[in-house]
Amino acid sequence: MIKVTVWNEFEHEKTNPQVGSIYPNGIHTAIKDFLDIYDDIEVKTSTLDLDDCGISQQLLDDTDVLIWWGHCAHNKVSDHAAELVQNAVLSGMGFIALHSAHHSKPFKRLMGTTCNLSWREDGDKERIWVIKPGHPIACGIDRYFELEHEETYSEPFDIPEPDELVFGGWYEGGEIFRSGCCFYRGNGKIFYFQPGHETFPIFKDKNVQMIIKNAVYWAAPTCRVKLECPHVKKIDTDK
Amino acid sequence: MIKVTVWNEFEHEKTNPQVGSIYPNGIHTAIKDFLDIYDDIEVKTSTLDLDDCGISQQLLDDTDVLIWWGHCAHNKVSDHAAELVQNAVLSGMGFIALHSAHHSKPFKRLMGTTCNLSWREDGDKERIWVIKPGHPIACGIDRYFELEHEETYSEPFDIPEPDELVFGGWYEGGEIFRSGCCFYRGNGKIFYFQPGHETFPIFKDKNVQMIIKNAVYWAAPTCRVKLECPHVKKIDTDK
Amino acid sequence: MIKVTVWNEFEHEKTNPQVGSIYPNGIHTAIKDFLDIYDDIEVKTSTLDLDDCGISQQLLDDTDVLIWWGHCAHNKVSDHAAELVQNAVLSGMGFIALHSAHHSKPFKRLMGTTCNLSWREDGDKERIWVIKPGHPIACGIDRYFELEHEETYSEPFDIPEPDELVFGGWYEGGEIFRSGCCFYRGNGKIFYFQPGHETFPIFKDKNVQMIIKNAVYWAAPTCRVKLECPHVKKIDTDK
Amino acid sequence: MIKVTVWNEFEHEKTNPQVGSIYPNGIHTAIKDFLDIYDDIEVKTSTLDLDDCGISQQLLDDTDVLIWWGHCAHNKVSDHAAELVQNAVLSGMGFIALHSAHHSKPFKRLMGTTCNLSWREDGDKERIWVIKPGHPIACGIDRYFELEHEETYSEPFDIPEPDELVFGGWYEGGEIFRSGCCFYRGNGKIFYFQPGHETFPIFKDKNVQMIIKNAVYWAAPTCRVKLECPHVKKIDTDK
Repeated sequence: MIKVTVWNEFEHEKTNPQVGSIYPNGIHTAIKDFLDIYDDIEVKTSTLDLDDCGISQQLLDDTDVLIWWGHCAHNKVSDHAAELVQNAVLSGMGFIALHSAHHSKPFKRLMGTTCNLSWREDGDKERIWVIKPGHPIACGIDRYFELEHEETYSEPFDIPEPDELVFGGWYEGGEIFRSGCCFYRGNGKIFYFQPGHETFPIFKDKNVQMIIKNAVYWAAPTCRVKLECPHVKKIDTDK
Repeated sequence: MIKVTVWNEFEHEKTNPQVGSIYPNGIHTAIKDFLDIYDDIEVKTSTLDLDDCGISQQLLDDTDVLIWWGHCAHNKVSDHAAELVQNAVLSGMGFIALHSAHHSKPFKRLMGTTCNLSWREDGDKERIWVIKPGHPIACGIDRYFELEHEETYSEPFDIPEPDELVFGGWYEGGEIFRSGCCFYRGNGKIFYFQPGHETFPIFKDKNVQMIIKNAVYWAAPTCRVKLECPHVKKIDTDK
Repeated sequence: MIKVTVWNEFEHEKTNPQVGSIYPNGIHTAIKDFLDIYDDIEVKTSTLDLDDCGISQQLLDDTDVLIWWGHCAHNKVSDHAAELVQNAVLSGMGFIALHSAHHSKPFKRLMGTTCNLSWREDGDKERIWVIKPGHPIACGIDRYFELEHEETYSEPFDIPEPDELVFGGWYEGGEIFRSGCCFYRGNGKIFYFQPGHETFPIFKDKNVQMIIKNAVYWAAPTCRVKLECPHVKKIDTDK
Repeated sequence: MIKVTVWNEFEHEKTNPQVGSIYPNGIHTAIKDFLDIYDDIEVKTSTLDLDDCGISQQLLDDTDVLIWWGHCAHNKVSDHAAELVQNAVLSGMGFIALHSAHHSKPFKRLMGTTCNLSWREDGDKERIWVIKPGHPIACGIDRYFELEHEETYSEPFDIPEPDELVFGGWYEGGEIFRSGCCFYRGNGKIFYFQPGHETFPIFKDKNVQMIIKNAVYWAAPTCRVKLECPHVKKIDTDK
């Protein structure tokens, strides 16, 4: 059983009627709904408006993969919460950062770079290409798929060179973007996935759902008896 | 069910009594034996003395993960057989290259480099450290384990930068070596693992057995409905 | 002084009047011309119609950076010549593979993968984005530049994960491509650059010229007193 | 002219007579001294006991490569100073982290991981092997060199997979360590180098000096007209 927690800042849905009509119960619930159909995935949700920004050590200890959606309220997430998430990932928890979570505190801390990019909101068509066909996150996806409207994100995207680049995005207005990036950090696995602008029904797209589901399986810890080595400090020696 | 084929050049065992006494039925059989205990792994063996160097397209089509042990007879493997293996890996078959298989034709073709290294045969103690504790191939292995006697391999090892460096070797005489290296190539996964000199009972070591077993699970294709993209050439267009 | 050799298969220019009118003296001469203006770069050319496919050990020994353009005649390059080039790169020579050289024998040997891609010849506009602004090969290039017409190359491009991805291409018809890729192999540096279809005056474009010039400086060997380690075999030991 | 700033926490030298006798004017001065002999390198120093921990935006703006030595006083460096350094690196400044600077605030922020390791202080002999002979930082170094006594650092070292692994350390007591690691982050280059324990005269070793000098040349910004892309946010569009 893989324990997934979907965290959502859950602001646009309450303040923007367009977003509210697409996701009446929040983006987190929409993600939970399509993951719930898998017998070996168990989904909880959490939101910024809960105590401690919705992040506690107890929650993280009970999470195999944390999915994160945030956009306009990154700064309302406390540094403490961000540090808890960072440490949980380094200890082995999977982390899936969606769309504007490129600028979320936990993702930026894990990358070490600005994670800056350029953007446009013109509702361009996006075509997402598979770069690495053999990768488990691309399993079941055709050579490319299209999203009729998405926010445009553009290179240069200031991230460390991804350990594996799985998807790349093409926008009709002329931009490209590394849309699906895998990173190994500490004992944990991180997947950044670009689609997910709140004003379009991106999380209702079958390909997007399949990719997020694949990413959950990929990011889940593969070894439950894992070493605590990174936290060992002094070498025992009888020298 | 993961279908494993263990290929062995099977020469030393027949010509060197010391090796023959350790592996009376060949190294391939010793590897098969410890993998056979897993219900979801099915093991075949093949050897250089069979038709076509023991490699056919039919065999490869029926193999999820190919394990390769070779040392003194790399040049007896035909270029054709090496090409078949290379193509099978790029199409998605897992490949585990053991010990002197760093200089095998299939491995060198997949790396594109000389794969040269330095070596000594003094029976040094080797201590193998886990570099990446969260990696599935390191699962269940302590911070390090020791092999009482191994052939010494030394850096510089002329390989492309591994996509993931999982193990590193220390030798009492003063050398180090990147002992466990993962590479992603095409749709396939490749794991190089240094231990396995024929004059020592390396494949009877519990840690070595666990690592090879872990590597089989890691290298097995993760997506059976994989894209044939790398072999698509001309883009269909109605432009 | 950096010694550059530009190798060109030099076939289209002689058989296709359109290509001949763009490059009356061959693509190799066009490239030589824009590199010749740099005082510290010295350029030779070589072509397939010379003895031994235009490749000899003597030539390679006298080359710091080899630029390669090939398209329709990859199979006319002998395996021996390809092996000489591969070995020279691993010994430290820089290698710049242009456009269809993704399928040249030396490049494929160095990558170890099929290097397959998809393509269209519709004269699409290409926009080339800088992915890595701090990289020396991107020095002086704006966020992106455009080529009015280029052959379309598309992902998935079956190469090992580039050590550094410097440029990405966008095509008006809907494709993307990793257009500028750096690889470190052995002691050598390799840069693959996608633009350069023979029917368009790509090598007369100022941005393309600047990038190739930058790549020459980047790929040139940085250490003249380099170790011969990769070719050392037996460790000297007094043990 | 490459402008180097050597930053040192400068505590042990004042409180530990053994360290003080090796480095009477501080480790920073010892490093400055061997870099000063190069005509195209200009060296300043800075220390923790200066205003603002010795780090200001003005200093960083006037620095091409920052060398950092810290050990017992990482926590006395303000978060603000660490952030200034991180941002300067991402904007293009080179950064060389020596020895215990693996746990310095700027390095940890740039890596995004715990940077934990294991250690012993037994004065073991260390042998440092060249892993990547063609790398400019290894230029002029033999296959390996030895330090008669060093602090022992051991894997697992919790860093992201280095973009280039240049050196590896062997210790007589049985440990190994990735001793020389290159990282590309934003527009900047980072080199971590393990030797440099304060109680041994490591910075007087000719090989260590050559490597740090090589690293200065490698880490210096290669493009003065660099793009400000990572800080561009909104795409200009006339759509």
